[in-house]
Amino acid sequence: MQADHPAVSVIGLGSMGSALAAAFLDRGHPTTVWNRSEHKAAPLAERGAHRAATPGEAVGASPLIVACVLDYAALRGVLDPVAASLAGRTLVNLTSGSPEQAREMAEWARSHGAHYLDGAIMTTPPGVGSPEMMFLYSGPREVFDAHRPALRSLGDALHLDTDPGLASLYDAALLGLMWSTMTGWLHGTALVGAEKTTATEFTPVAVRWLTAVAGFLTTYAPQVDAARYPGDDATVDIQIAAIDHLIHAAAARGIDNSLPELLKRTMERTSAAGHGSDSYASVIEALRDPAAR
Amino acid sequence: MQADHPAVSVIGLGSMGSALAAAFLDRGHPTTVWNRSEHKAAPLAERGAHRAATPGEAVGASPLIVACVLDYAALRGVLDPVAASLAGRTLVNLTSGSPEQAREMAEWARSHGAHYLDGAIMTTPPGVGSPEMMFLYSGPREVFDAHRPALRSLGDALHLDTDPGLASLYDAALLGLMWSTMTGWLHGTALVGAEKTTATEFTPVAVRWLTAVAGFLTTYAPQVDAARYPGDDATVDIQIAAIDHLIHAAAARGIDNSLPELLKRTMERTSAAGHGSDSYASVIEALRDPAAR
Repeated sequence: MQADHPAVSVIGLGSMGSALAAAFLDRGHPTTVWNRSEHKAAPLAERGAHRAATPGEAVGASPLIVACVLDYAALRGVLDPVAASLAGRTLVNLTSGSPEQAREMAEWARSHGAHYLDGAIMTTPPGVGSPEMMFLYSGPREVFDAHRPALRSLGDALHLDTDPGLASLYDAALLGLMWSTMTGWLHGTALVGAEKTTATEFTPVAVRWLTAVAGFLTTYAPQVDAARYPGDDATVDIQIAAIDHLIHAAAARGIDNSLPELLKRTMERTSAAGHGSDSYASVIEALRDPAAR
Repeated sequence: MQADHPAVSVIGLGSMGSALAAAFLDRGHPTTVWNRSEHKAAPLAERGAHRAATPGEAVGASPLIVACVLDYAALRGVLDPVAASLAGRTLVNLTSGSPEQAREMAEWARSHGAHYLDGAIMTTPPGVGSPEMMFLYSGPREVFDAHRPALRSLGDALHLDTDPGLASLYDAALLGLMWSTMTGWLHGTALVGAEKTTATEFTPVAVRWLTAVAGFLTTYAPQVDAARYPGDDATVDIQIAAIDHLIHAAAARGIDNSLPELLKRTMERTSAAGHGSDSYASVIEALRDPAAR
């Protein structure tokens, strides 16, 4: 084992796990891999990975074990029989799950003498290994610091919090932002597409607009924290009026309006709760307050 | 009138119209202003604007007239009595409205011998005058080219199409993207906020994530145009499973789930229409096809 390139074991070789193992190999880490279906290890073995015959062999091969399997239950199924051999090693769990599952897994690892980080991969398999892609980690800061050089082989490693549940919570929140943004973009693409504008014409303008929208989020974040939402740029009531242009234009072109209609109802709830002259950031009050629904 | 800084008249001095007039003044354009309520012109007059006593005086003062009023009906109310004096001049209409209204206004302007551009302002009043902010224009290319130097005083002037309705259509589509993105961000902010994470902690990560999301849109745009959606990064069915993590985490924290539940239903419709193994871009098929609803 080289000090600069510590040995890593990767458990789970779906498309994401395989991408993780490939990124470690590319950066020169001695990499051991294991997967329930053995054949998935073959392409990685050709690139120099050591194929472990059992989960126990994979755990024993490296001080750092990175896991990415279907869900937390599957991970426990793999690791429970070899839990004793995790003592003194670090388990970095990139499996998708809930904050509660992450906290439970952290406690399980602690009970077996293992260090534990929970993580979330904010990219698709082809993006793994790119230094600009975010990998979010939560758990003890010193465990993160100790393994940061290796974790940087996968992407930009960010430590969120000592609470192991935070990476999963951020993951859910950021994926929700992604689905909202992608669906809003597809609705807009369908709208301009009804007038013979291609997606490749519209999208560069949409992407540039997202930069401006990101600026609005940055402006609104301290408003949310202060629970004060000065509507000096654009008020909720003005935006309720403006969204009718979108709803009418989309309806006239036969496009499904469920999304803008939901957004309008949410704005109307916000206005009814007394935020009509406040900024759009005040919509968070309607999302948080069951009474306002 | 200087050739470099042609005279401009601004009709309508709400917060946006006042910002437009201020930007023209800042860049050295002789600027005439008119508003129904006279007092709104006072701060601009102090900065050197000429106050027109009537709409006719405002139209007569400049070869370029920029209008930004409440709606198209209000604009017709102001301009109908002085339509004859528009002949040979250019009307740039930044009033919000529908593509149909923009086309009707273009025809009205043409019938009075005026050149016409319809436009959309993709920023808030404080952003007017910043060269990175987008102003979208549609109408004859040569009219846009003739006035581009003056229009660049307001922001980055982009010409979309000769069809005067396109700026309004893009405006609606981009605002829809904005509301979707902002609401998704607020939902995520509420989610992490339930675990004591502030909006100012979460938002830089969210903004950085939006850059990755913008990359997904750029990847998906040609898929939309080709109506082929290879799911090699992440399939609709995988995302249907993933959104349950978000829905459960938000429900457990008392956060309104209308938005993620709508997004999930839309994905499920997409999958039911045969796109379960396709990329998220295939969701546009469910938005466009009333039969799939």
